[in-house]
Amino acid sequence: MGTALARAWLAAGHSVTVWNRTPARAEPLSAAGAVVADSAAAAVAANELVVVCLWDDASVAETLAGADLRGRDLVNLTTNSPGEGRARAAWAAERGARFLDGGIMAIPPMIGIPEAGGYVLYSGSAEVFHRHADTLAVPVGTHYVGPDAGAAALHDVALLSAMYGMFAGTTHAFALARRAGVPLRDFAALLTGWLTAMATTGVEVTAEQLESGDYDTDPPSNLAMQAAGNPTMRRTAEELGVSPELLTPYFALMERAVAAGHGGGDGTAMIDLLSH
Amino acid sequence: MGTALARAWLAAGHSVTVWNRTPARAEPLSAAGAVVADSAAAAVAANELVVVCLWDDASVAETLAGADLRGRDLVNLTTNSPGEGRARAAWAAERGARFLDGGIMAIPPMIGIPEAGGYVLYSGSAEVFHRHADTLAVPVGTHYVGPDAGAAALHDVALLSAMYGMFAGTTHAFALARRAGVPLRDFAALLTGWLTAMATTGVEVTAEQLESGDYDTDPPSNLAMQAAGNPTMRRTAEELGVSPELLTPYFALMERAVAAGHGGGDGTAMIDLLSH
Ligand SMILES: NC(=O)c1ccc[n+]([C@@H]2O[C@H](COP(=O)([O-])OP(=O)(O)OC[C@H]3O[C@@H](n4cnc5c(N)ncnc54)[C@H](OP(=O)(O)O)[C@@H]3O)[C@@H](O)[C@H]2O)c1
Ligand SMILES: NC(=O)c1ccc[n+]([C@@H]2O[C@H](COP(=O)([O-])OP(=O)(O)OC[C@H]3O[C@@H](n4cnc5c(N)ncnc54)[C@H](OP(=O)(O)O)[C@@H]3O)[C@@H](O)[C@H]2O)c1
Repeated sequence: MGTALARAWLAAGHSVTVWNRTPARAEPLSAAGAVVADSAAAAVAANELVVVCLWDDASVAETLAGADLRGRDLVNLTTNSPGEGRARAAWAAERGARFLDGGIMAIPPMIGIPEAGGYVLYSGSAEVFHRHADTLAVPVGTHYVGPDAGAAALHDVALLSAMYGMFAGTTHAFALARRAGVPLRDFAALLTGWLTAMATTGVEVTAEQLESGDYDTDPPSNLAMQAAGNPTMRRTAEELGVSPELLTPYFALMERAVAAGHGGGDGTAMIDLLSH
Repeated sequence: MGTALARAWLAAGHSVTVWNRTPARAEPLSAAGAVVADSAAAAVAANELVVVCLWDDASVAETLAGADLRGRDLVNLTTNSPGEGRARAAWAAERGARFLDGGIMAIPPMIGIPEAGGYVLYSGSAEVFHRHADTLAVPVGTHYVGPDAGAAALHDVALLSAMYGMFAGTTHAFALARRAGVPLRDFAALLTGWLTAMATTGVEVTAEQLESGDYDTDPPSNLAMQAAGNPTMRRTAEELGVSPELLTPYFALMERAVAAGHGGGDGTAMIDLLSH
């Protein structure tokens, strides 16, 4: 990811100094015009804007331990948790740096191609975000979600959570379809259309219900009716020799919500049951 | 659902005879022009095309037990499993009926509004499907998936499985976002865009990989890297007091796939691990 980002800025004519723990992985960037620094501290010293994209939050602390961060605009594109983002912001402030945390909603092939629809969620210093807005927008789109340095990570993790849930669902669906000998490309086309339609209507309705607090009013397809279909879902998995493990907790939560008296309402009640 | 279907056909000028176990729920349809039959057997006797939409497969057997099905084109829109669909087809054939099974991919407010994008998956007798194609297309779109009477149920359950996985993910995501005090409508807009983008690229790629059998070739975002993010996902849920239960099995499956040597490839390997 760091390589893809550096290439995008180099291609746009920015002067870029790079450092990577394993030097051989940074070398190819010198042919693209980057200065390859000998140490992380030297890379930090080169410019006011410092972008880090490492394995995890601990590797950020380790890498920047010996660097002088005073007066730097530190942009952290390493995936982290909201708590880690906030703690890293305090850590940066103690060291005299302004701090912007980022969560990358894109994969490397989408970097440098803003039309591909990827973006980085940013939170923390609005000053850093606005001062470097044009630079930050070079590799992918940008989306600032607020001054709380943990907000970008929160959004990042929440979007990834939803995606992993969807992937759990598609993993189960493909396992069924393959076992049944269904033509998989035709099935994929149906699946994409169906998920897109359900994402569009379902998600908006849920947000409205959570904001109004009113989610028990006679939906067209209530939780009791949905839960009544669970045996069919389980039976189908069993008929085809597919483990239901990825969906079992959702079925169980639906059934708990019905047992708790939410059967006449929408699935939104499950969000309350998940928070303790 | 039965009421919505009957109303759509009545509105299109078809002559419709209806029956419901609890007569009071069928009565309002007579004002819309339906003949209300005294018994299920009488309703079956009224027309060549017989559509049943009941609670579950067992209620179909029970309801039609006393009816003379000879020469009838029986269309079953009750949600069932593939095995139940095939068994019901054999049962219908023994009783002298042609049989078409259907799975409704729509909720009642979408019935009668084909532009709303809902449809019914059909499988079983192609003859019945083609003979009644225009009639069947009145309430919602139609999609015939093959002569195996279990195929409609398979597609139906597989699409619903994927949807429930997605809903599990959005349930978790909304629980996090609400706990963090994120503005939920803005979050919903990001969530819809993200899920739509991921459904579009991810699903097609998976189908291609399953068909080619080649899914270990250096993807831009491999399973090992994705699984390395699991602790951040778990930590974020913990920081915010949200139970990770809906995503735990997917994280565990990712980790099992990495441990089994699939870390360099795509998530497609998990589909194999799910089938036993
Ligand atoms: N790839 C994606 O699709 C994607 C998408 C969104 C977000 N991200 C995020 O981007 C970040 C980087 O991911 P990536 O795909 O670039 O992973 P990667 O290819 O494995 O790169 C990890 C980088 O971190 C360095 N590193 C690891 N531990 C270190 C330590 N203790 N000290 C110093 N450097 C260390 C590695 O250096 P060496 O070369 O020396 O090992 C390497 O440069 C992660 O937080 C990831 O979640 C990635
Ligand atoms: N609603 C949706 O969003 C939706 C979407 C897709 C598919 N479906 C499927 O459509 C089918 C019907 O669902 P629905 O929403 O219409 O549910 P519903 O409103 O609860 O209606 C169920 C119907 O089945 C009848 N019934 C139940 N047990 C019976 C029995 N033993 N003998 C005779 N009749 C019996 C009920 O009669 P009484 O009035 O006498 O109780 C009622 O007419 C289900 O298979 C469902 O999965 C529904």
